Amino acid sequence: MIRIDRDRLWRTLMELKQIGAYSDEATGLQGVRRLALTDADAEARRRCVEWMVEADLEVRVDRIGNVYATRPGRDRTLSCVLMGSHIDTVATGGAFDGTLGVLGGIEVMRTLNDAGIQTLRDIEVGFFTEEEGVRFGTDMLGSAVTAGRIPLDHAHKLTDADGKSVKEELVRIGFDGPAPERRPVPHAYLECHIEQGPLLAEAGVDIGIVQGVQSISWQRLTVRGEAAHAGTTPIGSRHDAGLVAASVVVEARRMCDSGEFGQLRATVGNFDIGEGQTNVIPHRAVITVDLRNPDDALMTAAEQHLAGYVDRLAGQHGVRIAWERMAKTVMVPFDARIQDLLAATADDLGLPYVRAMSGAGHDAQEIAAICPTAMVFVAGENAGISHTPREYSNPDACGNGTDVLANAVLRLANEADEPVS
Amino acid sequence: MIRIDRDRLWRTLMELKQIGAYSDEATGLQGVRRLALTDADAEARRRCVEWMVEADLEVRVDRIGNVYATRPGRDRTLSCVLMGSHIDTVATGGAFDGTLGVLGGIEVMRTLNDAGIQTLRDIEVGFFTEEEGVRFGTDMLGSAVTAGRIPLDHAHKLTDADGKSVKEELVRIGFDGPAPERRPVPHAYLECHIEQGPLLAEAGVDIGIVQGVQSISWQRLTVRGEAAHAGTTPIGSRHDAGLVAASVVVEARRMCDSGEFGQLRATVGNFDIGEGQTNVIPHRAVITVDLRNPDDALMTAAEQHLAGYVDRLAGQHGVRIAWERMAKTVMVPFDARIQDLLAATADDLGLPYVRAMSGAGHDAQEIAAICPTAMVFVAGENAGISHTPREYSNPDACGNGTDVLANAVLRLANEADEPVS
Repeated sequence: MIRIDRDRLWRTLMELKQIGAYSDEATGLQGVRRLALTDADAEARRRCVEWMVEADLEVRVDRIGNVYATRPGRDRTLSCVLMGSHIDTVATGGAFDGTLGVLGGIEVMRTLNDAGIQTLRDIEVGFFTEEEGVRFGTDMLGSAVTAGRIPLDHAHKLTDADGKSVKEELVRIGFDGPAPERRPVPHAYLECHIEQGPLLAEAGVDIGIVQGVQSISWQRLTVRGEAAHAGTTPIGSRHDAGLVAASVVVEARRMCDSGEFGQLRATVGNFDIGEGQTNVIPHRAVITVDLRNPDDALMTAAEQHLAGYVDRLAGQHGVRIAWERMAKTVMVPFDARIQDLLAATADDLGLPYVRAMSGAGHDAQEIAAICPTAMVFVAGENAGISHTPREYSNPDACGNGTDVLANAVLRLANEADEPVS
Repeated sequence: MIRIDRDRLWRTLMELKQIGAYSDEATGLQGVRRLALTDADAEARRRCVEWMVEADLEVRVDRIGNVYATRPGRDRTLSCVLMGSHIDTVATGGAFDGTLGVLGGIEVMRTLNDAGIQTLRDIEVGFFTEEEGVRFGTDMLGSAVTAGRIPLDHAHKLTDADGKSVKEELVRIGFDGPAPERRPVPHAYLECHIEQGPLLAEAGVDIGIVQGVQSISWQRLTVRGEAAHAGTTPIGSRHDAGLVAASVVVEARRMCDSGEFGQLRATVGNFDIGEGQTNVIPHRAVITVDLRNPDDALMTAAEQHLAGYVDRLAGQHGVRIAWERMAKTVMVPFDARIQDLLAATADDLGLPYVRAMSGAGHDAQEIAAICPTAMVFVAGENAGISHTPREYSNPDACGNGTDVLANAVLRLANEADEPVS
């Protein structure tokens, strides 16, 4: 068993946290705002590439801006073992989401170097473009392009709120790479990531072996009503776009509370009525609806229920409502053999763990379409809260998760044959 | 009986409509965006002053930017008869709201000039600053300062969303006048205004004699929750500021539908969660709640119910909620004698009318605190819709309303003694 240098990992995590740092008003903490393909993201990318080069890795950038760094194995004709995650953050992000898996992967490489270990297969560590989906509206973008689910041209043409496209931003920051986006198929893909939930902390363990990722549905809803005077317009004559949007928010929560749709989680993270006026009925409202469900059938039932509810609302209030599909992924189960290999590795390290489904989306769910894939979760404090500067996993938890990653990668990289999974 | 020149009035209305004109996306129509003390408002003010000077009136500007123009009477020691309204608009405004009463008042002056009529008392026409309250957050601002309800210093310090104060904007546009804001008490105040509601159209008349203005309550509600990940945060652990704000919107409407609070009208015209993210629970939401009620006791009951509802919500969701009072006016009844004088004038002109409460707030409700006051309503098409470019009152309706104004003003301006009202 090898052990990574957890002080070195922690210093690296704390250094990258400074890139895109901002002072968060709500929490009084320093947060990270490193949206994909912004200047901050570019600076963090360059820093990661420097660390990769310092670790004697061969770096390449593909046409969607994904970055891979290779540590050669003895037989370069064999498929590689890939580690990875992302370094972009949400606007109110912390230092661990995504970053841990990337910097942990680089730390694995350094540890193998320090121990003078040569593996049979190549090992790679990479980071994928726009995992969060906050800037260009589609999450897991880079990994979805790599896995073939989203065509490169489509991804290139996505635009942010200012109309800037993925392609032009890739060019602008110098990460419009030459490597084909459909990369060579790996032997296996492993992603270490913070849990972003309370299950590990409740179980009193640092480590989770992830069984799969729940279904995710993102939709945008545009309501068009009619502006009118707040004081004189009778209640029955109103076409209040803001009220209709608010009703959707409340119904989505009621659906979760009802238990009718299993473990449904619904979130309305955007609510935009433009420049509001106190005494004017809003004529337009745009909201997003984020639904999560570990059960595909119950997810479909939830989407259908919400669509029916919205139709009835439109009729009652005399407004027009347009749905736009932003993203939809079905439940993705991870590879059972790799899960068991991760569990055996944790046992050998003497680290207790639980098995759990992922509540969040991850690049691993995309890469799972092309090769055997699994994930290691690392516990977070404050019930695993994430997407806020309060996000925090302590040095031991980060080190333990990365030790599991290191030893599992080492085993996989020495597997001679493609095993039957 | 005198008759105003309705073609001349209409041309004036259509000319002022060009100042602050914008192309409205929602309706495809040309609207008016002339927020108080903006460049557009300044240009409209200057145009009105030109018309006042052309009508041989003596123009003065007071310290809150209200503009008055005087037509001298025979006995200048007597108090004047004042006509007025406002020329600022909401961001999605039309050509008639407020403007009709000001340009109608100027047209009355021209008509008296043309007929060579001299009155016993001075007649004045004026316009008040920031009636809409859209820019600086307090409606009827200029008239409230004049009536003594809001101190001048307080009004001067109010700021817009960009932090610009009323005082600095008055100075910037050249309407920081020298006249005392607490003006000489008028003999009577008359305001002609579009109805902004459907009652006159439903009754098939052009004219309304206004009995009073319903109570208006404006409050701003700031909800502070906690940002967290949409996929991983259990429903029961959320502190969702957006959901709480949406629940208030839905409850406010339910209160109107219930009938429990009489003829309550509730509107949430602002709903701001900052820069939203699809997969992040909103940590902050700011909404405004506009309540209207013709019954003061039922208004108070509605405010108390909503406050209790919000308290319970805060406890349930573990969020902090701050209320901020933006404006509150009690029900204001108009002067019975002036109402009857307006009704008699309409009868003499052969114009049918109805008596009605006002659903909207008006400068008249402020001036009513210092002198006998009443209003003439003019019917609007499309059920009197207002605060949208669809707002429209036809030339005959505008002419008829202004004829009532002209003849009522003439009668009042020839009253020798202060009558018992």
